[in-house]
Amino acid sequence: MKFKNKNIYVSGTANIGKNVKIGDNTVIYDNVVIGDNSIIADNCVIGEPLHNYYSDVNTYENPKTIIGKNAVIRSFTIIYASCEIGDNFTTGHRATIREYTKIGNHCSVGTNTDIQGYTTFGNYCRLHSQVFVAQRSEFGNFVFVYPGVIITDDPHPPSNISKGVIAKDYAQIGAGSVILSGVILGENCLIGAHSFVNKDVMPYSLVAGNPAKFIKDVREIRSKDTSKSHYPWMYNFERNMPWAGIGYEAWLESQKSDEQK
Amino acid sequence: MKFKNKNIYVSGTANIGKNVKIGDNTVIYDNVVIGDNSIIADNCVIGEPLHNYYSDVNTYENPKTIIGKNAVIRSFTIIYASCEIGDNFTTGHRATIREYTKIGNHCSVGTNTDIQGYTTFGNYCRLHSQVFVAQRSEFGNFVFVYPGVIITDDPHPPSNISKGVIAKDYAQIGAGSVILSGVILGENCLIGAHSFVNKDVMPYSLVAGNPAKFIKDVREIRSKDTSKSHYPWMYNFERNMPWAGIGYEAWLESQKSDEQK
Amino acid sequence: MKFKNKNIYVSGTANIGKNVKIGDNTVIYDNVVIGDNSIIADNCVIGEPLHNYYSDVNTYENPKTIIGKNAVIRSFTIIYASCEIGDNFTTGHRATIREYTKIGNHCSVGTNTDIQGYTTFGNYCRLHSQVFVAQRSEFGNFVFVYPGVIITDDPHPPSNISKGVIAKDYAQIGAGSVILSGVILGENCLIGAHSFVNKDVMPYSLVAGNPAKFIKDVREIRSKDTSKSHYPWMYNFERNMPWAGIGYEAWLESQKSDEQK
Repeated sequence: MKFKNKNIYVSGTANIGKNVKIGDNTVIYDNVVIGDNSIIADNCVIGEPLHNYYSDVNTYENPKTIIGKNAVIRSFTIIYASCEIGDNFTTGHRATIREYTKIGNHCSVGTNTDIQGYTTFGNYCRLHSQVFVAQRSEFGNFVFVYPGVIITDDPHPPSNISKGVIAKDYAQIGAGSVILSGVILGENCLIGAHSFVNKDVMPYSLVAGNPAKFIKDVREIRSKDTSKSHYPWMYNFERNMPWAGIGYEAWLESQKSDEQK
Repeated sequence: MKFKNKNIYVSGTANIGKNVKIGDNTVIYDNVVIGDNSIIADNCVIGEPLHNYYSDVNTYENPKTIIGKNAVIRSFTIIYASCEIGDNFTTGHRATIREYTKIGNHCSVGTNTDIQGYTTFGNYCRLHSQVFVAQRSEFGNFVFVYPGVIITDDPHPPSNISKGVIAKDYAQIGAGSVILSGVILGENCLIGAHSFVNKDVMPYSLVAGNPAKFIKDVREIRSKDTSKSHYPWMYNFERNMPWAGIGYEAWLESQKSDEQK
Repeated sequence: MKFKNKNIYVSGTANIGKNVKIGDNTVIYDNVVIGDNSIIADNCVIGEPLHNYYSDVNTYENPKTIIGKNAVIRSFTIIYASCEIGDNFTTGHRATIREYTKIGNHCSVGTNTDIQGYTTFGNYCRLHSQVFVAQRSEFGNFVFVYPGVIITDDPHPPSNISKGVIAKDYAQIGAGSVILSGVILGENCLIGAHSFVNKDVMPYSLVAGNPAKFIKDVREIRSKDTSKSHYPWMYNFERNMPWAGIGYEAWLESQKSDEQK
């Protein structure tokens, strides 16, 4: 039904894997590598030339862009040249991923989300819809960012400082929150929805409010449904997680034994 | 000036009403029904195939999608297959309406707004720009949602619970507010701009702040302009409302007599 | 690499300057003027017909739209007919600029930002990503608006009042803030990130919180990096500013002597 091969442009220097589907009106620029079995839907731009292209169109060379295997890039997404993205990557519609963004495996970037570049994501990170990530942040693994979150990079706007946010493994950033430049979000922390976080958050802490204050240890949060402890969430959530079917503990053990090999 | 009939794709199983205009580069997929006198502007996608299309392209069948009469769908809007939308529907640019969304008559969805699906809207609802609606909410009639509002569906992110928000008739949700999963917004309530609403709001209540607290009965709010009572707003606002020209009371009466027939 | 001249539509009544590049799938409607050396990237719409076009397609005449020299309009941007924009204008991707917006020289509008129209911007204004500006605001010169800010225009939603915000020269509006209809933001003020501003802000004031309260004079803010005074910011920031290389004081002097001529 889709994929009618209309108005597609693929550069001669692009390297397209096996069984890749490319949607109508999609453009794939120079030096883009796309892994096997990926779907690049309609109206996408992959390998968008960097700003200096406009200064000298004739001598410009597009830096290498890598998208791994099994990607599903939804329509109208723009990924700049120089990005490096792992396997099993997914986007919503109209995601924007700017230059020198590095994304691990099994990550997703939601509809209308805008990553400004120079940022690193580990594995299994999820950015939902309408998220904004300024430059130079570092995200660990299994960090989930809910809709409308804003990650800033300038502590004294406007200044010459560009310093992102550091979010450690398993951190969860609630919808509509703003995280100030330079803040460190500790492992397994939970940022309540609509919070303004202007200082570091300790591991396993729930913080909330404007400005965000420590509320309690996340391990003390009870589920409204089951009234049982819900956090650390890995024990109670496994959809699309590597521990699906076996449980988090068993997966952790398997990781340790993998490391010993 | 517009509608030059370039690069349009309309599926053979789509059912397009009389006097429908379709913009350039717009795609209308299988089993879409569009009512008479509708305008689908350029670069839209109507009947976007659901996710399982990608799992089995050959056997996939697109569910039926219905858009009523007199729609004005602005450019770059994406409406998923399985949506059912009433008459006189309007969108801004780049609206995204995902699967199993049901929308009544005379509704509008603003620029860059993202409805994640499985949500129901009554008649005369308005979602302004950059609104995000997670799954499984229920909106009554005449509910207006102002720019940047985020409606969530997971009380303990990430969890397996997806429970939306219930917004009763005439509720007004101020710009930049975040409404927590499961909250009930009472009839005729008013959510102040930039609020974080984490518990139910009584009918006719103004709540505001982070977290939102009860401020006053909306009937006690005086207009800054006229210093007269402004709420319930239906007595002071009639643009595009069914009581335009006759007043809210007369319209209510006419509805009651309609029901008796 | 880009600019392959595919599917471009330029109206016969458009007036395109010298050395203008137009991207694929871009549409330039009637009575648009574009200055020399501008780049209009792919999939843009310039001179989008106003709403009354749909009421009478045959007699509609598109109002004049002006974009100055050296513009860089990034892909998927929509600029309505009747806008007047100065020289050296830049947009991110998918900016939306609606009718009767007037923008001075050296301004930029970020990715996914939505300006609803009837608003005026001075020179050197910057709107970052995902900003929303309701109708009828007035921005001075050197006003910077950070990501996710919402500027409203209705004090009692829904009402018949549309009254924007007035932002004076050098005002800085922090990420994720909401500014209420009718508020005046004084010269050189600073709105902290994620604030809700519901009353006027005095010149040189830092306000923050929900609702925003006076924190201190901006001249008392010390840089976290240098522990020196950072505001007024013009003494410590010159990237793309007219005082780059000479300093703010020298530039101010040069302006005064220019005025005397």
